[in-house]
Amino acid sequence: MENQDSLFETLNPPQRLLMGPGPINAYPRVHQAISQSLIGQYDPVMTGYMNQVQSLYRGVFATQNKQTFLVDGTARSGIEACLVSILKPGDKVLIPVIGRFGHLLCEIAQRVGAEIKTIDIEWGQVCPAERVEEEIKRFQPKLVATVQGDTSTTMNQPLKEIGEVCHRHGVLFYCDATASIAGNDLLVDEWHLDAVSAGLQKCLGGPSGSSPVTLSDRCAEVINRRKHVEAGIRAAHHEQGDDVMIQSNYFDLAMIMDYWGPERLNHHTEATSMLYAARECARIFLEEGATNVIARHKVAGDAMVAGLQAMGLTVFGDQSVRMNNVVGVYIPNEVNGDAVRGELLNRFGIEIGTSFGPLHGKIWRIGTMGYNARQECVLTTLAALEAILLKHGARVDAGQAVAAAMALYC
Amino acid sequence: MENQDSLFETLNPPQRLLMGPGPINAYPRVHQAISQSLIGQYDPVMTGYMNQVQSLYRGVFATQNKQTFLVDGTARSGIEACLVSILKPGDKVLIPVIGRFGHLLCEIAQRVGAEIKTIDIEWGQVCPAERVEEEIKRFQPKLVATVQGDTSTTMNQPLKEIGEVCHRHGVLFYCDATASIAGNDLLVDEWHLDAVSAGLQKCLGGPSGSSPVTLSDRCAEVINRRKHVEAGIRAAHHEQGDDVMIQSNYFDLAMIMDYWGPERLNHHTEATSMLYAARECARIFLEEGATNVIARHKVAGDAMVAGLQAMGLTVFGDQSVRMNNVVGVYIPNEVNGDAVRGELLNRFGIEIGTSFGPLHGKIWRIGTMGYNARQECVLTTLAALEAILLKHGARVDAGQAVAAAMALYC
Repeated sequence: MENQDSLFETLNPPQRLLMGPGPINAYPRVHQAISQSLIGQYDPVMTGYMNQVQSLYRGVFATQNKQTFLVDGTARSGIEACLVSILKPGDKVLIPVIGRFGHLLCEIAQRVGAEIKTIDIEWGQVCPAERVEEEIKRFQPKLVATVQGDTSTTMNQPLKEIGEVCHRHGVLFYCDATASIAGNDLLVDEWHLDAVSAGLQKCLGGPSGSSPVTLSDRCAEVINRRKHVEAGIRAAHHEQGDDVMIQSNYFDLAMIMDYWGPERLNHHTEATSMLYAARECARIFLEEGATNVIARHKVAGDAMVAGLQAMGLTVFGDQSVRMNNVVGVYIPNEVNGDAVRGELLNRFGIEIGTSFGPLHGKIWRIGTMGYNARQECVLTTLAALEAILLKHGARVDAGQAVAAAMALYC
Repeated sequence: MENQDSLFETLNPPQRLLMGPGPINAYPRVHQAISQSLIGQYDPVMTGYMNQVQSLYRGVFATQNKQTFLVDGTARSGIEACLVSILKPGDKVLIPVIGRFGHLLCEIAQRVGAEIKTIDIEWGQVCPAERVEEEIKRFQPKLVATVQGDTSTTMNQPLKEIGEVCHRHGVLFYCDATASIAGNDLLVDEWHLDAVSAGLQKCLGGPSGSSPVTLSDRCAEVINRRKHVEAGIRAAHHEQGDDVMIQSNYFDLAMIMDYWGPERLNHHTEATSMLYAARECARIFLEEGATNVIARHKVAGDAMVAGLQAMGLTVFGDQSVRMNNVVGVYIPNEVNGDAVRGELLNRFGIEIGTSFGPLHGKIWRIGTMGYNARQECVLTTLAALEAILLKHGARVDAGQAVAAAMALYC
């Protein structure tokens, strides 16, 4: 155990250009923020930072929701926190499944013991609001749960109309915005979203490990009816909810709201370094401005598509509803997809993504997110991919891709 | 939203000396590690780092357990992951409660639907192994769950004898070692511990937000019988367990083992920056050597106690079983505890801890952990506390504390 051989070398990760579906390279300012000195969890400076984070993410989510905070875990932790806090065993949830992450919502809801009805959409398409309304009428769910940007298919589910439908029928509306937030429009209040969770590692340009969450007042009320302050810290003035206790302690959003609220009721020990990172991600987004950031993602995505198509490659799915920040492209038949990806990584230090389920081995997924939604990253990736494809004998049109992408940046 | 006033200032936390029950200041090397460049989650360098982390934490836990990895969340997430993965609804769990974090184990087990029997120990004492054996015979639990170092009381529960009892009776044995690990002996294999979870933010000298976990082979088998590979990524060759599905997806240790195992089956997106931090914490511990690190914590804790007693203050609880890394000390009647703590923070930048439950307002908790288990931190804290106590009119013996502490460092 005290053998020096087992200590491994000093951490020295290679410099990669991460152009997959995420995680991607963090903004340099996020690296600076995450390495700052730690402070105590009830230090007034720390609770001040927590309040700032709440305010900043209200900006990111375009919401006035008081209940806007971080869940300490990866994006998946925020999804589970929302679903387990809203759904009781036997509650009905309607889930449009447009890709792999829709299955994940079902999976989590199943473990909560909810009754699930799915709307299964062909991969590469999105779910029409009319389908949601029909099923709401038939199934009478408590919650509609959906994914905005599902990176498995690169599709971006329109939410505005579904939000109106849910609002009209008095159904709660949850959305996993992990892969779409900060790269595509997301207007939480305007679209009547009741609960949204996200992650830092896509267009927000931070590391995985913190999940921003926002809850509407009516959603927070539903959750607070399940409040159960834990025995070790419960005092006489703490009201316990009259509804079924949430089946997770760590993901009990009622307790997490109390931790972020004025009482600062102890729950977990806030992950300070990740909070620093989350704070900086939001500051970068708001400083550049939502409109500009999303436009930057749109042009980067469009330039990537233009370049891939100019090479003669075919992109996947309904392009009218593609996420700005990731595109699926068919792997040419004449090459081995993993060999090309491997050589791109080993020669250029550039990572692009493989894919899941029915698309595995058929498409690559190429992202342009956060710090990497920049012209230089798009052009470098196209030039490198073209070179490696030519080396592998792919029949691509040489010399067209970069020019086509540059045309979008004039 | 694009108003610059709402962006707040550049992150610039004050330099605190964190001498409470944790979180504490991280080792400078951990700050360096956490700020390194991100890489993709299936980059061979990343999976290499994951393998190294497994190996390093086997060293930290003094175990050969193959199943040794990180859960992506705070220490509390590791506790819940272990309990929810081991315990099914109706399973019996025996919990010796020596403080607030024993209540937390009960709270989590309750939400899992387990049948709980507690052994309630007066705060300031620990649970004798004989009591555990008696209750095992009577109650026939599947699991004994305990806390090693409970910072709420500063007591360090002896585990070796309870481990032997559990082993003899074929009962699984879980321990929350968050606050004790790396500051007190913890011999996972020798003491027959089946599941242990921890955190970085105490004696390991890192930030909160990653939870190292280790599982014995027999515990991993129990959990794998509940394996349920999620629909979005399930393939024909994936065996599903025949036992009740784990009620959390995020904390499903069967899936987390597959993510850390050779198949690298996608689950969450590993929190890369926190993994970098966890890796460095373990390297620092193993480089200095377990024996030396624990001795350093012991002398720091003893010196703090000697100093407090030389001032004329009274320490809390059975000192023969006190954690090396935190001491409870009675607040002198003639001062306001929070006012003293506040002035210590504002004038010296030093944080000491308040306390929970029955001890709230009665004792302060002073930690000497990780990077702060150093002579200079102990002496500075004693000198500062003495000065502030004198200013507040406390009847303490001036000029004795630092000398008494220094005597342990000769």
